[in-house]
Amino acid sequence: MELVEICRRAKDVKYEVQKLSTQAKNKALISVADALVKRTDFIIEANRKDYDNGLSNGMHQGMLDRLKLDGKRIEAMAEGLRQVAELEDPIGTEIEHFVRPNGLEISKVRVPFGVIGIIYESRPNVTADAFGLTFKSGNAVILKGGSDAINSNIAITTVIRDALKEENINPDAVQLIEATDRAVTTQFMQMKEYVDVLIPRGSARLISAVVENSTIPVIETGTGNCHIYVDKDADLDKAIPIIINAKTQRIGVCNAAESLVVHKDIKDKFLPLFGAAMKEKNVEVRADAAAREILTGAVPANEEDFGKEYLDYIISVKTVSDVSEAISHINKYNTGHSEAIITENEETAKKFLNEVDAACVYVNASTRFTDGFEFGFGAEIGISTQKLHARGPMGLKELTSYKYRIVGNGQIRG
Amino acid sequence: MELVEICRRAKDVKYEVQKLSTQAKNKALISVADALVKRTDFIIEANRKDYDNGLSNGMHQGMLDRLKLDGKRIEAMAEGLRQVAELEDPIGTEIEHFVRPNGLEISKVRVPFGVIGIIYESRPNVTADAFGLTFKSGNAVILKGGSDAINSNIAITTVIRDALKEENINPDAVQLIEATDRAVTTQFMQMKEYVDVLIPRGSARLISAVVENSTIPVIETGTGNCHIYVDKDADLDKAIPIIINAKTQRIGVCNAAESLVVHKDIKDKFLPLFGAAMKEKNVEVRADAAAREILTGAVPANEEDFGKEYLDYIISVKTVSDVSEAISHINKYNTGHSEAIITENEETAKKFLNEVDAACVYVNASTRFTDGFEFGFGAEIGISTQKLHARGPMGLKELTSYKYRIVGNGQIRG
Repeated sequence: MELVEICRRAKDVKYEVQKLSTQAKNKALISVADALVKRTDFIIEANRKDYDNGLSNGMHQGMLDRLKLDGKRIEAMAEGLRQVAELEDPIGTEIEHFVRPNGLEISKVRVPFGVIGIIYESRPNVTADAFGLTFKSGNAVILKGGSDAINSNIAITTVIRDALKEENINPDAVQLIEATDRAVTTQFMQMKEYVDVLIPRGSARLISAVVENSTIPVIETGTGNCHIYVDKDADLDKAIPIIINAKTQRIGVCNAAESLVVHKDIKDKFLPLFGAAMKEKNVEVRADAAAREILTGAVPANEEDFGKEYLDYIISVKTVSDVSEAISHINKYNTGHSEAIITENEETAKKFLNEVDAACVYVNASTRFTDGFEFGFGAEIGISTQKLHARGPMGLKELTSYKYRIVGNGQIRG
Repeated sequence: MELVEICRRAKDVKYEVQKLSTQAKNKALISVADALVKRTDFIIEANRKDYDNGLSNGMHQGMLDRLKLDGKRIEAMAEGLRQVAELEDPIGTEIEHFVRPNGLEISKVRVPFGVIGIIYESRPNVTADAFGLTFKSGNAVILKGGSDAINSNIAITTVIRDALKEENINPDAVQLIEATDRAVTTQFMQMKEYVDVLIPRGSARLISAVVENSTIPVIETGTGNCHIYVDKDADLDKAIPIIINAKTQRIGVCNAAESLVVHKDIKDKFLPLFGAAMKEKNVEVRADAAAREILTGAVPANEEDFGKEYLDYIISVKTVSDVSEAISHINKYNTGHSEAIITENEETAKKFLNEVDAACVYVNASTRFTDGFEFGFGAEIGISTQKLHARGPMGLKELTSYKYRIVGNGQIRG
């Protein structure tokens, strides 16, 4: 189907999706979940084509692994949808209510965006996840997945749409852009007349391409150059496990730590422990000169290292004279994602919490907690690293806008 | 000064502005207000240059009038700043607070955006207004005003900056881009590294140029193709004054009505009254065929009329069979600004409130109330017509973002 036709259909259907009752949405989510499980073979067959294409195109093992679907992964997708059905419906909630002196009664009410566009390059399960969250929040969605997973995405979308039809819901509530050439993706970013919000999910390169080219309002997600600052008043029994967790629990995610910042007064005591821990986890350390006095085996860190999201078994180390220098360093190099301080000093912690410019600022905890599930939102469409609209983990509420309803009895402006 | 240097200074100063106490900000706002009044002659002298340039460039009378500053207008600018000083400071307010089962204490706190860019083409008083609102909400601001008012804007910014210096506040909290060529404005829209949010204020053309070219997140403001729908159950004693008010109280503003939608069952009774009212106010009526059966003198309305923000003594008229058709028509042609229904039927009103897709939806009141002051926000930077972040009138709160502060005692993710 032509891109414009897809967009037109989404715009047409959005008022229908918006009007669906919570009950109807939940029932549909469960039906879709059941259908995904029931049609596992159909999905796996399509997925095999992508997998075989990946193999013959020399896709590397990690990517192949993420691409591959099996019964367990499809069951997990279905379970995700069932969980979304359990979540509170944000639509229609009154956020504020006030009466003006002239008698006008104003209420601020949560409403869907309308049409959300999601551009992603990651695993095919995103197709089901993105449908679940956008649908439950009353939005129509247009999905543009990576070309490597196109057959899987078509199959999953087909199953979702068929199940919606069974529920007497217009299947255009979820549409997939099947064209795989880049020109279409760029054209999609310009469909401002039809699409209310665009959310890119994936690599820094994808996100910056969307920001460059989109005329639709964008929510940037995902890039995380996260720091752990070990203050002079740190409890080292907390510092070491937090750093190991933040750096190595999952290296390829946006809330993983990429850099250690350390107070000069504690470096002699702390860095040997840190060095040993990183060595045990096979993490390469790239450190400034002051840190290398202790970390004798470390590679020298250059300017570029401090600005880098490695997503790998590498960590940079920067030595600072005080918390102010730590904050300046972090505010210079971070991506506005997640930053942590390890300290027992309340004043220092407060200063760090106030002055570090990021979506999530931590005291004595791992940056890995920046996540919709860990925050208790019950779901997550991504982590926003911009300041407009939503910041940090985005759940259902963050996929909504609001409107003002004003009731009068003939008021005119004087 | 080079644009990049202006942006760099704004980014550097933003952490200072963010840390200012409410008291310090309020004191500074009042000092600036006093300085504007005290240096009235200095400002008027600069304004005269713009006025004379306007005259010799053949600027039309309405524009010249809006450009011109006198003692009274400067006093009004100062009074605006004093009012902003009275408003509650949104910064630091806790929006949510929750504790997770693992003991992490999460608080969601209101913070400034950081650096706001404002591109405007309107009157020079916007310079002082925009400073007041962005400063009180803890932001640094970079202003890019219209070239027609450049001398006035330089004078006003000079007065503001001098007064800030007197208060020991870094004057770079407010900076003006003095270059008047368009290439610089376009370059400014790409300064994503330094500027957090861009707010264009002005014509539809200006706004769409910003949306096209900006890589910085934009809040779209201002275009309003507003409708009044007169339902079959309307009280005509309310309908007529509301339409006169919405259409003619101020024709050049975004919340003025541009189109009447009328139910076929009431048109025979209502349109003669409407026609007479419009005639008395010298408003040209452009109507569809059904309406012209009654409004015999009306010009035929074409497709383009329904999509047009006239900002003039012109109104279009569309006849519909029921409220659903009215809603579809409005959702097709509106700009997401303000829409009103006149009806005594609660069910119909409810349907209209729910289904019309706009920032502000009214029952039995004039669309002219879409305004930060009328909503009781005490201030207004503009009316957002997008769904991301803020929708409708934007006051101080809408010039802020939030961050999560998370306090733990050694938590790591399992």
